[in-house]
Amino acid sequence: MNNQSKITCPGFKFSGISAGIKKKNLKDLGLIYSEKTATISGLFTRNVVQAAPVILDKQRIQSGKARAVIVNSGNANCCTGDRGMADAHTMTQSLANVLQIDKNYVYAASTGVIGQYLNITAIENVLSDLVDQLSENNLHDLAEAIMTTDTVPKMAGKTVQIGDKVFNICATAKGAGMIRPDMATLLNFVCTDIQADQQVLHECFQTAVDQSMNIITVDGDTSTNDTALILANGISGLSLEEPEIRGYFQKALNTIMLDLAKALVKDGEGVNKLVEIRVVGAYSLEDAKKISDTVAHSNLVKTAIFGEDANWGRILAACGRAGVDFDPLKLSIHFNDTTIFNNGSYCGEQAEENVSRILKSDEYAIIIDMKNGKYSHSMYTCDFSYDYVRINADYRT
Amino acid sequence: MNNQSKITCPGFKFSGISAGIKKKNLKDLGLIYSEKTATISGLFTRNVVQAAPVILDKQRIQSGKARAVIVNSGNANCCTGDRGMADAHTMTQSLANVLQIDKNYVYAASTGVIGQYLNITAIENVLSDLVDQLSENNLHDLAEAIMTTDTVPKMAGKTVQIGDKVFNICATAKGAGMIRPDMATLLNFVCTDIQADQQVLHECFQTAVDQSMNIITVDGDTSTNDTALILANGISGLSLEEPEIRGYFQKALNTIMLDLAKALVKDGEGVNKLVEIRVVGAYSLEDAKKISDTVAHSNLVKTAIFGEDANWGRILAACGRAGVDFDPLKLSIHFNDTTIFNNGSYCGEQAEENVSRILKSDEYAIIIDMKNGKYSHSMYTCDFSYDYVRINADYRT
Repeated sequence: MNNQSKITCPGFKFSGISAGIKKKNLKDLGLIYSEKTATISGLFTRNVVQAAPVILDKQRIQSGKARAVIVNSGNANCCTGDRGMADAHTMTQSLANVLQIDKNYVYAASTGVIGQYLNITAIENVLSDLVDQLSENNLHDLAEAIMTTDTVPKMAGKTVQIGDKVFNICATAKGAGMIRPDMATLLNFVCTDIQADQQVLHECFQTAVDQSMNIITVDGDTSTNDTALILANGISGLSLEEPEIRGYFQKALNTIMLDLAKALVKDGEGVNKLVEIRVVGAYSLEDAKKISDTVAHSNLVKTAIFGEDANWGRILAACGRAGVDFDPLKLSIHFNDTTIFNNGSYCGEQAEENVSRILKSDEYAIIIDMKNGKYSHSMYTCDFSYDYVRINADYRT
Repeated sequence: MNNQSKITCPGFKFSGISAGIKKKNLKDLGLIYSEKTATISGLFTRNVVQAAPVILDKQRIQSGKARAVIVNSGNANCCTGDRGMADAHTMTQSLANVLQIDKNYVYAASTGVIGQYLNITAIENVLSDLVDQLSENNLHDLAEAIMTTDTVPKMAGKTVQIGDKVFNICATAKGAGMIRPDMATLLNFVCTDIQADQQVLHECFQTAVDQSMNIITVDGDTSTNDTALILANGISGLSLEEPEIRGYFQKALNTIMLDLAKALVKDGEGVNKLVEIRVVGAYSLEDAKKISDTVAHSNLVKTAIFGEDANWGRILAACGRAGVDFDPLKLSIHFNDTTIFNNGSYCGEQAEENVSRILKSDEYAIIIDMKNGKYSHSMYTCDFSYDYVRINADYRT
């Protein structure tokens, strides 16, 4: 993560305040405002059940234009029927009135408990205040306002110089639970001053999401509200039409998104460990993905990670049920640079001692070498702890 | 469960003793002995990684004949390479010597930690004792000897009278963790005095397993050692060639297997609740299975069950990611006979109060009505508790 106070992007302003949706006066209402009309692209949950703001955004995003995004936490505005849809519309219409902009360029996002009506009056009452607080330097407030069970706000930013020009990207995300591929993150907002049409921006964003938000897991569930939006206002004067610029932009965007993705896992509910499940030497990319995905989601592997137990048998057993054919006698399993299982055999107590030391650290890699081909794939997962159970057993109370 | 002391089957003897594989002199070695050569059929783990005894049994079962099954707990004899295979062979050969029977009619099963060599000498040392203890009334000892993290031995039996004849079925199973469909149970042994050829016996067993062991889940993992065997010695004089007899037998077997399956979930690691996830009104059986499976495996649903939280939003969200297209506004969710979500709306506080009472009980059903067709399917799942994490964080220590 960059130094938070420096994460800005020319032409974009942010704010975050408390509307009283969450308890204890915590920030729960955030705003992104673009001084000029920006190109927008987005990715949304693939869940059949979709929250009202998701349905609204998916309609509006067809225009490719945006001026503002309003976000609340503490309530998902999902399974709230016609009233929920009306509330999502009101939220954007009322903000458009205050900002004196076209409501069709205003997007909404919500996160929190499902099935309860949004207190739309509480939101309307503070919209002027929300707008008053807008500042280029307030990304941190927005990042706080979108948190649910997250314990820290998450931001990332990058400035890239090309000749005498620069472009900027800044981003925030919230996650905590319900993290898995298929649009893993609950909420993710990216602002950039690059110049782009919607199609190219979308391609870049999809690529970055695929190698960040789509390779992480906390608990294997997905939400009804997952929303990732990218806004590009073009004021850098650098355009994605230039292949070279696009290359630099893609690289910077990938880095920012992967930083945020890892931060989401590390701050997952009850999480103590960030573990990369890296499959190498697979016969196909699909095989590598299936195996890394199955190991990353195995509750038995995740509880062993929590217990700092070098239980490679569970890793092997998870590989074996991934739906991939392989020879268990060829495969090897490594924790960072220590091999624990090789050519069908356990590597002995010295190896186990070395692995035990690795298991005590906060971040490490489990490498599964299939020795069956040239394809590789990584997933980022975490431990499964008492605290995950505690947080999720009484989430609504 | 039936009265345990009465669970017997003519022609079969059982024993269970301690060989010192498990700590504290716990029973860890069990034996099934058939006085005459029985027909055998089996189902084995679909995991690519398979333990030595599984590999051995899959070879021997092609003959369709059995005289004995020897089982140890405390060690899975898996990922133990050539030595593991040799140990599995020795285990059956040495027992065959003591019993003076053909080693090719002796089957083996192991359950416990993966990747450690079996103490085969310890087993050999007690084989005479194991045989000495054989008795028709000792199914309970076998049931104890196959336990790992199970807290209670699990048995079931049935005697069915047809005219002036009777047939008997008795069975035991062990489970605890690593329970999911695709051959869910770790070990399951069924003995019957029905007369059957291997093909018909296999069909009946597959049918019974599909509606019992294959519709339960504890943690969604599968093991490398899953083995279910059925032995039929034919001495009842009733044959499965008779359609009427087969009908009675299938029904009795289904009942026994479902009883055992539910007992496995109830005794799952850290489990406090047995919950049926019943999907009705689905457009197809496949849809019903996908939705019940996804809800039954959702960690968020399972932690809410633990927390006794009527979090129907998570149930709906899990339905939505099952890969089935449906209209969330049509679907309804019920806890036993109380509706909590209907026609796109939450049913209010009175409904929630009623559901809260249901959630406090040990067993209940969550019914998801898709209102989209005539197909239904049930899965049995459990809560996800602190104790599950505790048991699995330090399983090897």
